[in-house]
Amino acid sequence: MKTALSIAGTDPSGGAGIQADLKTMTMNGVYAMTAITALVAQNTTGVKEIVEVAPGFLQRQIDVVFEDIPPDAVKIGMVASRGLIDVIAERLRFYRAQNVVVDPVMVATSGDRLISPEAVASLERELLPLARVITPNIPEAELLSGLAIHTPEDMEAAARRVGDAYGCAVLLKGGHSVNDANDFLYESGAGTWFYGERVDNPNTHGTGCTLSSAIAANLAKGFDLPTSVRRSKDYLTGALRAMLDLGRGRGPVLHNFDLTGEFGREAEA
Amino acid sequence: MKTALSIAGTDPSGGAGIQADLKTMTMNGVYAMTAITALVAQNTTGVKEIVEVAPGFLQRQIDVVFEDIPPDAVKIGMVASRGLIDVIAERLRFYRAQNVVVDPVMVATSGDRLISPEAVASLERELLPLARVITPNIPEAELLSGLAIHTPEDMEAAARRVGDAYGCAVLLKGGHSVNDANDFLYESGAGTWFYGERVDNPNTHGTGCTLSSAIAANLAKGFDLPTSVRRSKDYLTGALRAMLDLGRGRGPVLHNFDLTGEFGREAEA
Repeated sequence: MKTALSIAGTDPSGGAGIQADLKTMTMNGVYAMTAITALVAQNTTGVKEIVEVAPGFLQRQIDVVFEDIPPDAVKIGMVASRGLIDVIAERLRFYRAQNVVVDPVMVATSGDRLISPEAVASLERELLPLARVITPNIPEAELLSGLAIHTPEDMEAAARRVGDAYGCAVLLKGGHSVNDANDFLYESGAGTWFYGERVDNPNTHGTGCTLSSAIAANLAKGFDLPTSVRRSKDYLTGALRAMLDLGRGRGPVLHNFDLTGEFGREAEA
Repeated sequence: MKTALSIAGTDPSGGAGIQADLKTMTMNGVYAMTAITALVAQNTTGVKEIVEVAPGFLQRQIDVVFEDIPPDAVKIGMVASRGLIDVIAERLRFYRAQNVVVDPVMVATSGDRLISPEAVASLERELLPLARVITPNIPEAELLSGLAIHTPEDMEAAARRVGDAYGCAVLLKGGHSVNDANDFLYESGAGTWFYGERVDNPNTHGTGCTLSSAIAANLAKGFDLPTSVRRSKDYLTGALRAMLDLGRGRGPVLHNFDLTGEFGREAEA
């Protein structure tokens, strides 16, 4: 049984954060573990309150995992402060972590920066060089590359610049503004477009968490990076196409759409 | 889509706590949510450190869930202090929560008490009367009933006494010492034995969390209580029979054994 660790914040309403990661990894056939960076009181209507975990306690969570069940892949999501980023990077180096997927959560859909410039610098210096692949969206790629992105060609240029700067692969996700559902993967001097199906579903809460943890799960299972990206995009498309409609805001996707066994069955009406 | 909320502590190593509950609920076909009572640095070898959440922040987590995605069932696991128990009980009454399953985690396998006498009193007074069903093990049923349990007949007597005292159904789980894998359900003056398959698997970390959250998921889906118990015992048996072997101590069960779709597939060797 392959294993994967998510290092991220929480979402009580279950659509994003370690909750989405646990669901995604479980549905993608690996054994899922977590180290929580922050307790977040949020739901589909927004973030209400954040209680960050102390760096020393984040380290304890990472240590109890690696000392007992070494993960075959690690996904890193929201890490908002420099102290937490430094602890993660130090521990990943110490344990020689493999298949590290970094979702560089830095910019909200609204365009607001989510983490401090100091934390961004630490992320760039400490964490990105440890990554097998990073999965920025357009605003995050603009921030990391210093380039404005308006066209697919801009996406290619930004991915190349970031990948070459940090020595990691870059999956630059197209989005509402540029090249919807088509993502560009840059790795070691080569670039590949992954064309996705546009699903007309307003409920996209947690799609970034879901995609990056699915990639980690597939890397853990031994798929190569392009295959992991393809399979993860297909998984996310399935979760979107299920058209789950929960919550009063931007709702979550259906992580367990691919459940066909006896135990997923509902009661007869 | 039916929904379920787990209120419990964490297990970074993924086998127990809200991690096990999320996996179990997801594999049992409901939409899973969480409110975290305590961050626990633990793995299969034991508990290293506990950081309890402030009662006010537990309330915020419960509120963001109920205000946005009201759960069809609620499972309550480890809640170690009176302040947290009182917040949970008050909020469940306020929101008129249905299908409340309480796993009264009070006594470790070693026999050690896990929560203070004050917290036990609060659990009995505030939380048990709100439960649709509670799922004590033998030592917990001894504590709640004041009876020593050595035989199946003792189990029946203790379940009756607890159920009548708190006005809830009681699933008293047989264990290593008495009546292994056979559980007794007492409800409103009637008792039913559920005979389970003894699985010779030493890796039983999180089985209590798994059973109670599976019952919550099945109640959420509309199954009656006896059917929910039967389906949940079958699910747990399947998770044990998969003979997962992870970690250096008492390992977790395989929550996603019933995954047959494309996305659970591993890479070809």
